[in-house]
Amino acid sequence: MIAQDTIVALASPSGAGAIAVIRMSGQKAIAIADAVFQSVSGKSVAKQKSHTIHLGHIVEDGKIYDQVLLSVFKNPHSYTGEDVIEISCHGSTFIQQQIIQLLLRKGCKMAQAGEFTLRAFLNGKLDLSQAEAVADLIASDNEASHQIAMQQMRGGFSNEIAKLRAELLNFASLIELELDFAEEDVEFADRTQFKELLNRIEFVLKRLIDSFAVGNVIKNGIPVAIVGEPNVGKSTLLNALLNEERAIVSDIAGTTRDTIEDELVINGIGFRFIDTAGIRETKDVVESIGIKKTFEKIEQAQVVLYLFESVKFQVSSSEFIIEIEKIKNQFPLKPLIVVINKIDLISKAEIENIRKQLEAVNVKLETISAKTNTGIESLKDQLLSFVNTGALRNNETIVTNTRHYDSLLKALEEIQKVQFGLQSGLSSDLMAIDIKQALYYFGEITGEVTNDELLGNIFANFCIGK
Amino acid sequence: MIAQDTIVALASPSGAGAIAVIRMSGQKAIAIADAVFQSVSGKSVAKQKSHTIHLGHIVEDGKIYDQVLLSVFKNPHSYTGEDVIEISCHGSTFIQQQIIQLLLRKGCKMAQAGEFTLRAFLNGKLDLSQAEAVADLIASDNEASHQIAMQQMRGGFSNEIAKLRAELLNFASLIELELDFAEEDVEFADRTQFKELLNRIEFVLKRLIDSFAVGNVIKNGIPVAIVGEPNVGKSTLLNALLNEERAIVSDIAGTTRDTIEDELVINGIGFRFIDTAGIRETKDVVESIGIKKTFEKIEQAQVVLYLFESVKFQVSSSEFIIEIEKIKNQFPLKPLIVVINKIDLISKAEIENIRKQLEAVNVKLETISAKTNTGIESLKDQLLSFVNTGALRNNETIVTNTRHYDSLLKALEEIQKVQFGLQSGLSSDLMAIDIKQALYYFGEITGEVTNDELLGNIFANFCIGK
Repeated sequence: MIAQDTIVALASPSGAGAIAVIRMSGQKAIAIADAVFQSVSGKSVAKQKSHTIHLGHIVEDGKIYDQVLLSVFKNPHSYTGEDVIEISCHGSTFIQQQIIQLLLRKGCKMAQAGEFTLRAFLNGKLDLSQAEAVADLIASDNEASHQIAMQQMRGGFSNEIAKLRAELLNFASLIELELDFAEEDVEFADRTQFKELLNRIEFVLKRLIDSFAVGNVIKNGIPVAIVGEPNVGKSTLLNALLNEERAIVSDIAGTTRDTIEDELVINGIGFRFIDTAGIRETKDVVESIGIKKTFEKIEQAQVVLYLFESVKFQVSSSEFIIEIEKIKNQFPLKPLIVVINKIDLISKAEIENIRKQLEAVNVKLETISAKTNTGIESLKDQLLSFVNTGALRNNETIVTNTRHYDSLLKALEEIQKVQFGLQSGLSSDLMAIDIKQALYYFGEITGEVTNDELLGNIFANFCIGK
Repeated sequence: MIAQDTIVALASPSGAGAIAVIRMSGQKAIAIADAVFQSVSGKSVAKQKSHTIHLGHIVEDGKIYDQVLLSVFKNPHSYTGEDVIEISCHGSTFIQQQIIQLLLRKGCKMAQAGEFTLRAFLNGKLDLSQAEAVADLIASDNEASHQIAMQQMRGGFSNEIAKLRAELLNFASLIELELDFAEEDVEFADRTQFKELLNRIEFVLKRLIDSFAVGNVIKNGIPVAIVGEPNVGKSTLLNALLNEERAIVSDIAGTTRDTIEDELVINGIGFRFIDTAGIRETKDVVESIGIKKTFEKIEQAQVVLYLFESVKFQVSSSEFIIEIEKIKNQFPLKPLIVVINKIDLISKAEIENIRKQLEAVNVKLETISAKTNTGIESLKDQLLSFVNTGALRNNETIVTNTRHYDSLLKALEEIQKVQFGLQSGLSSDLMAIDIKQALYYFGEITGEVTNDELLGNIFANFCIGK
């Protein structure tokens, strides 16, 4: 299906650079290209082969806008499945605007967010979960989320779902067939095989559903609440953790990105550090509100990191122990790391003393010195130990998308209904309804079942130009 | 000449977008591409034709980094004249970094600022003034500077210089020939024709040198000092001037740029508005310093725009007139526009009264109301009248580059020496020295004469990736 509209958008990041890429897709893309592009070779764009690049000028009424490279992709061999033209122009924002405005005048319309990928989906170049992975891929800022998005975009997730769906569909049609011969009481669908299939589907669905906990964390980063008084060295700690990663980034001029100080990537896994005000006991109303907020933030976090300074702990260790116990009582299941900073300021015997006091309340101690750069690696290992990266290492399919998660939950529910029906000898016609419903939810994931509202919601989150 | 090093850089703007473009150039570009790229077709990059695009994956040790489009440009048919590979990948900064790091590991080195264009120059794809125009083109943010850079990049300026240089070179060799036959006292170079040529060269050089005043202003924007008290409506005025231009910009999502509030483009010409504190007479030391600063800013500006409010003028018109006269006395040659704001608040008779008072001191009045949007167009015309856009309209060559300007001045000096020599019957051997020197300065512009330091200075101002 080739859309009537020909859309245009800037495909490269906004702002100025050496070059910028403007992308057109649709029925008139080639005709519009021919209206504005004068090839050095003199040949028209329409006569060029697909997947070729041509030097020339963007011209309107004799006025030259820019010298450009124009790439031709002819349908169906393009990202969208339509005719696609990419114009690689000089990267000033002025030139970008001038060329886009010219293309709009020549009959293009401005692309909506994600409209190129929507068209790719509508033309069958990608299924829905693959299309969603494109947005995830562009948004990915660490190794793990990138790897998952990449796998999903290449169809890993869809293939797993599609295979199960095909098998279930096969049984569904056999059972439908039984309904046609209802009066003869035949069984086309082998109930033992069917049961085995349902168990297999249940197993896979459960694994996928379970993977969401990891997937979600990897996609959005692991929230870590840092509890500690002001000036206890939170930013020093973050910098120490961040150190080597940042060095890599700034090595490559032109690709440095804005660093959000409290987000960092450790061994490819993203962590979000949430600053809290601490929970020192107090009668002050204002401070009480502060403690309440700290608890709320800990509630949202997946890991609690309690940070204190070596010398201060020496002075008022019992108060610190009370605080630590309070957190443990309030959040018994939440992993707690107690980190003592500036260990270079106290003796080894003193460190051991602190360690013993904490062991008495069942808390393990991490010791660091941001100054002498000791203990940082051990702390990283501690943080990583809370992420189940096994699935990631084994290249298993991991669900990261809330929409998929919901559909999987609903599909599981239907499958379990079918299983129950099979056990309790439910009639084929009633069982067929549950099977159809399960198939429906499978189809929702890959986009075989869809509607405009769903598509609108999905693609609205894309960037323009993709 | 193909450089030994293969360089790599991000060519698209930094940051995240739908896609990003990574560019490699050099002897090993194709081999490195083959080491990291697995084409969907299975064919190696080395076997692909120039100017073709290929879908595939960037892979290292079985790990897939991204699905990409790879463009092949084989030497000499590329921007740099070397083998060039462009990788169009998904636009996350993470992916950009991963791929660039991979290419560095495979033997690329990070490109210096402007290194691609430097190679294009060294390989004779562009002359030096064309190479400089590439940077100007990328930096251009308005119609006029874009048009000039475009003309220069397409060789308009170089051609004009090269033609004169060729003619001068012809005479130079004839005169050299005379030196070989010095004892016979022959004249190979027709002195009348030579004189005519020198006059022509002098005329062109003078025109080009004169054009620098316009060119510089167009490239850097015209500085306009706004004199007026705080809250007199400066930002309202700027917004009114900016209004329609900004509307165009924000129409195109994804191409909006950071607006510097005090820079704006009127009919394709850039204006830089410099805020001043006003020059009200005072005995206060602090305010005196303020007045001194205002005068300094006016000194730098090319046009002075004096802004006041209609009602306030009514109240203390004589003071305002004194201020205006003070500016006129201090800067007799600097164009002064007096603008009265909020004319909707006073009567027509009152406006005429103000106009008469100003006419008495030889100042023309512009009246505006940002509220009712009157007078804005007339003010724009006034501002534009200070720019000699004739050359621009006639598509004449305009010099915008200080380096070119310097070389042109020196060339003119040498040409005038030759003219004087010719008049005063200077011997051929002495005249030959001056001609050679003139040729040298011509060559400096187009890059026939060059050195590493000069090239270093020029290309250091480029962005990386170009």
